[in-house]
Amino acid sequence: MNRRVTLAARPNGMPKESDFALDEARDPEPGPAEVLIRNRFLSVDPYQRGRMSESRSYAQSLQIGDVITSQSVGEVVESNDARFGAGDWVVGQTGWLELAVARGGALRKVDPSVAPPTTALHVLGTTGLTAYFGLFDVGEPVAGDLVVVSAAAGAVGQLVGQLARLAGCRTVGIAGGEEKKRLLLEEYGYDVAIDYKSEDVGAVCPGGVNVYFDNVGGKISDAVQLRLALGARIVICGQVSQYNNVQPELAPRLTALLIVFRARMEGFIVSDYAHRFDEALPRLAQWLHDGKLRYREDVVEGIENAPRAFIGMLNGENRGKTIVAI
Amino acid sequence: MNRRVTLAARPNGMPKESDFALDEARDPEPGPAEVLIRNRFLSVDPYQRGRMSESRSYAQSLQIGDVITSQSVGEVVESNDARFGAGDWVVGQTGWLELAVARGGALRKVDPSVAPPTTALHVLGTTGLTAYFGLFDVGEPVAGDLVVVSAAAGAVGQLVGQLARLAGCRTVGIAGGEEKKRLLLEEYGYDVAIDYKSEDVGAVCPGGVNVYFDNVGGKISDAVQLRLALGARIVICGQVSQYNNVQPELAPRLTALLIVFRARMEGFIVSDYAHRFDEALPRLAQWLHDGKLRYREDVVEGIENAPRAFIGMLNGENRGKTIVAI
Repeated sequence: MNRRVTLAARPNGMPKESDFALDEARDPEPGPAEVLIRNRFLSVDPYQRGRMSESRSYAQSLQIGDVITSQSVGEVVESNDARFGAGDWVVGQTGWLELAVARGGALRKVDPSVAPPTTALHVLGTTGLTAYFGLFDVGEPVAGDLVVVSAAAGAVGQLVGQLARLAGCRTVGIAGGEEKKRLLLEEYGYDVAIDYKSEDVGAVCPGGVNVYFDNVGGKISDAVQLRLALGARIVICGQVSQYNNVQPELAPRLTALLIVFRARMEGFIVSDYAHRFDEALPRLAQWLHDGKLRYREDVVEGIENAPRAFIGMLNGENRGKTIVAI
Repeated sequence: MNRRVTLAARPNGMPKESDFALDEARDPEPGPAEVLIRNRFLSVDPYQRGRMSESRSYAQSLQIGDVITSQSVGEVVESNDARFGAGDWVVGQTGWLELAVARGGALRKVDPSVAPPTTALHVLGTTGLTAYFGLFDVGEPVAGDLVVVSAAAGAVGQLVGQLARLAGCRTVGIAGGEEKKRLLLEEYGYDVAIDYKSEDVGAVCPGGVNVYFDNVGGKISDAVQLRLALGARIVICGQVSQYNNVQPELAPRLTALLIVFRARMEGFIVSDYAHRFDEALPRLAQWLHDGKLRYREDVVEGIENAPRAFIGMLNGENRGKTIVAI
């Protein structure tokens, strides 16, 4: 039988494990042009929280009983698409389940000789592409810019700082706790690290921020916005501090600062850049190969532990990219 | 003696007439390369409120006793700059005073045969340029776009809607009261008009807003932001609803909507486009000449009435561009 993690209840605020169910379904059969995949690694990402709510977002909400949406990496078991054969590694939006069926056209082949297959879920996958297009296309960094990143030790943040340095920028990472702060400096090469839990971001964040790559929103972002440079770009990648609010958080209006600093604040979704993934992926792979991109994976064993890993990630307990290994 | 309006006290919240003083100074004398101007028309604009506060902005604050900053139009009395002669009409940032001295390089000649000299303070001056660059450069409208404008009956707003129609857009104007609503439809050619005082902007604003040209901020803007189209551009021109707040207004955080709609919010200041004023002014003059741009002036007589006109404008009592005639 095929084990799957489904939505048992819509979370009210921070998700609980009881909002998820582990069920078993009959093994799926691939139809014409479809591929049967045995998933090996499931991705755990903040955007999944949005899918669990009914409020309007950029994608359809999950319904109760639906398998949790995710990118997953697995091995092809059986293929009715000539581009894939048994044993191939593939990545696709197949969800938190052991056996998946997907159209071949919705899958991407993963070459395990280039890098470990898990990297297709981060540095050579969605989080790498998110960092790449968010920073380069939305943030438009110029050599010499000061780039500040929130959730800098997270799956996207760990890469943004390194890409910004490759582009000749100075980087400041914001994360919670001394251990993450050390990671920012020692692993991910941030020039400056700020622990928002013990430090006042507003007091310690350097002024003249040219690019703010924002994964969290909330008070941390308010503090950075007071320190923009003229012509700053604020990349709205995520607002994870807000995703579990039952009521919208009230905050002082700061919009007039965009006039003062002639600044731009822009949201994006990585899938809007799908037509350019083939531009970014070889570059990311080259940098990875050259040792210019480092990453951390936080691997949890067992599909039954996916909900706990997800909740932990929302609480900032992960170190790098959260992955569930089956 | 030279009558001047100066800052008597920093306004706390909405300015009062007692925050201003009318003083008399000795007639100024032009130095080398300077021009002596007898001002005829003084401009009254929301940005002046910012100069009266000590809080950080894009320009130096006024000090107590300083002449109120403004654009003014006047006639040259005496010139030590060969480009100007007695009797020429000029516009410059000379302030609320009768006799001004300015460097010739800081003045622009006004041709009264093209349009009345007062237009150098609006449609053929700063508000026209603000509408032009804010809409076209920041808003990047595409024919067929839905363009929503707040404070649409104000000095900038009255022009933005007309420029957007020239660019093939559909336009929605938001203003306060039935009379302004009629002006939007009958004078400024808005396709739709909304009276925020009697109508729920959120309920009546059409969905799928491609460009939101925001002069006011606050709750009106919150309502529009819930109705953006994918890829929307929010032009932050002013936030006049917030300028008189003693404490920052608290509001629900809406930043995550920028992700949902892949939207961009960007502030600008017209002076950043100074190098392109010569591109815009002839176009604005041509459209004015062709009857494609209509405007209203709200002219108040007497320099002593400038503070009252300013306070009235902040309260939305003006109809079109507020000007003080001396």
